Amino acid sequence: MTHVHVVILAGGSGTRFWPASRRRMPKQLLPLAGATDEPLIAATVRRMAPLVASDHVWISTGTALVDATVKALPGIPRENFLAEPIARNTAPCIGLASATIARSDPDAVVAVLPADHFIRDEAAFREVVERALRIAREGWLTTVGIVPTRPETGYGYIEVGDPISDGGHAVKRFVEKPTRERAETFVAEGRHLWNAGMFFFRPQVMRSAIAEHLPDLARGLDRIDAAAAQGEEGRVIAEVFPTLPSISIDKGLMEKASKIAVVPGRFGWNDVGSWEVTWEMSDHDDSGNAVPPDTVVIDARNNLVRDLTGANPRKRWALVGVSDLVIVETDDAVLVVPRDRAQDVRLVVDALSHRGETDKL
Amino acid sequence: MTHVHVVILAGGSGTRFWPASRRRMPKQLLPLAGATDEPLIAATVRRMAPLVASDHVWISTGTALVDATVKALPGIPRENFLAEPIARNTAPCIGLASATIARSDPDAVVAVLPADHFIRDEAAFREVVERALRIAREGWLTTVGIVPTRPETGYGYIEVGDPISDGGHAVKRFVEKPTRERAETFVAEGRHLWNAGMFFFRPQVMRSAIAEHLPDLARGLDRIDAAAAQGEEGRVIAEVFPTLPSISIDKGLMEKASKIAVVPGRFGWNDVGSWEVTWEMSDHDDSGNAVPPDTVVIDARNNLVRDLTGANPRKRWALVGVSDLVIVETDDAVLVVPRDRAQDVRLVVDALSHRGETDKL
Repeated sequence: MTHVHVVILAGGSGTRFWPASRRRMPKQLLPLAGATDEPLIAATVRRMAPLVASDHVWISTGTALVDATVKALPGIPRENFLAEPIARNTAPCIGLASATIARSDPDAVVAVLPADHFIRDEAAFREVVERALRIAREGWLTTVGIVPTRPETGYGYIEVGDPISDGGHAVKRFVEKPTRERAETFVAEGRHLWNAGMFFFRPQVMRSAIAEHLPDLARGLDRIDAAAAQGEEGRVIAEVFPTLPSISIDKGLMEKASKIAVVPGRFGWNDVGSWEVTWEMSDHDDSGNAVPPDTVVIDARNNLVRDLTGANPRKRWALVGVSDLVIVETDDAVLVVPRDRAQDVRLVVDALSHRGETDKL
Repeated sequence: MTHVHVVILAGGSGTRFWPASRRRMPKQLLPLAGATDEPLIAATVRRMAPLVASDHVWISTGTALVDATVKALPGIPRENFLAEPIARNTAPCIGLASATIARSDPDAVVAVLPADHFIRDEAAFREVVERALRIAREGWLTTVGIVPTRPETGYGYIEVGDPISDGGHAVKRFVEKPTRERAETFVAEGRHLWNAGMFFFRPQVMRSAIAEHLPDLARGLDRIDAAAAQGEEGRVIAEVFPTLPSISIDKGLMEKASKIAVVPGRFGWNDVGSWEVTWEMSDHDDSGNAVPPDTVVIDARNNLVRDLTGANPRKRWALVGVSDLVIVETDDAVLVVPRDRAQDVRLVVDALSHRGETDKL
């Protein structure tokens, strides 16, 4: 019998949600999906709770983020937080988590999920995950691909091959972010799915693939395993991890390995990439505004106002004659930007960084 | 020898500067003129300081505003604050102030000035005031008219008549707010000035004019004078004031009396009528933004941001790709409105009033 474990990848330090997101308070720790106060990572864990016992939930994050992440996930045992001393992309991260799980539970099957995505239809999501886990049990390195709803050029795609069991398919190939034209072809043809960064596998299958395609990583994991047998893995991880190759699991392994499967999913997936997306996902008034309760709205349309200050009671906002704006306020900063330029918040972060205003980063 | 007294009319309770202005914190108590922290009323008093001793400065305001007004003017003796129990427009207000001054200083000459205007060239202003005071000493009810710089339809005009002494003119007539066409004619012809609500007179001349044109007010002032002789004017003012006719000095008296003079003035006068005007009067960066220090500005033009919160240090503002906005934040409210709709802030005040949110009014 196999046991389901889930590894939540929570190392992100995005700048696209400034002023809410900061180096020490990245996107996954924030409640960015619509009108809820639930941080994205807490929603990610909660969605999997029907399938996974909480002591089988592992959180991979950076050393600097551990405390804040622990706080966001009070139900997860402290020892299940895997702190990376330095960010080395997803291959070392997943390799380490997989090795850690294998030591305590050799019969595990592992789901790796990003911490910072939104999923509207949670039951449909779990149904897809269960199929991916069944396929992974059979020895496939499995991923879930999102059925595209638009010719998005910001994501990688997965080309679907022959059907296998359980609604899954062999993967024909991974495709880098396409041009607009190519993305339109993908959507029209219906043979490509979005790569959403979800992976499912048995640890020994993952370890074999790493040994074959990422030998440096395999050697590092061998050293960590050996140290763990002596109860010294903490020291050795700190020593070995920075020497591991910084490469993604997609590039380093999935694009090269042979027995790769994909399960198509339709469950209202969204990677919550900008304040614009937060506006889309929020509840709106009749004029398309997503604003704090009791805001005075006069001739104002399609605005997002997020008051993330600690003030209690909240301020009274008043919007008169403005449209398509994003306004986000925290206790120490206020952002004002048109919705269609929400991505340019990175320019603000760059400017603050250039000025050395580290307390605002 | 005559003594100059100045009466500052500070009864206003404008709503056009919400959320900064409130019932208990009207426009004149706020620093709305450009980049200064000086409340408009403090600037009004300071401008006159070279001409008037501080114990000859009288502040006419509403009972509810006395405490806040005293606080804004620490140099003025407490007994010089004249509290109106109820707003009765300018004629009763000026009549009462004039009578009060006359009792202690029968040789006074009085300047009446609005508390909430801005004047750029203060030396030029004082020069005009001194001429108006000299003309007033000769027995004229005198006003200062602003040389128009645009065909403004929001002000009353004064048509200039024959020259008298000291650069003054007899007033031919007062003209109500004109149509656009008529205002353009006024500016083209050069015989009309803006009525800026400044009045200069000897108290006995004012009292005679009141007796002739506003007999109800004259009777009320007689009762107050009689009570003052018994040291009981406080009680009698509270009793009499609400019964006085609510009428402006312009309509009730200046438009009717015979010996009316006007001195033309050019001194960068501005009645600070809206946030739009505050933007105009503020220091701007190269892109026309008047924003807090250290604001991150990216592709943003001609915006006004006023952070009037008590927070210390101030928040870091970031404007990306927005133009021609007014954003004003206080400790309990935030307004966002395009500059060209700044007047519509009254709609917000109406909405809050309709909701019964009296703490925000």
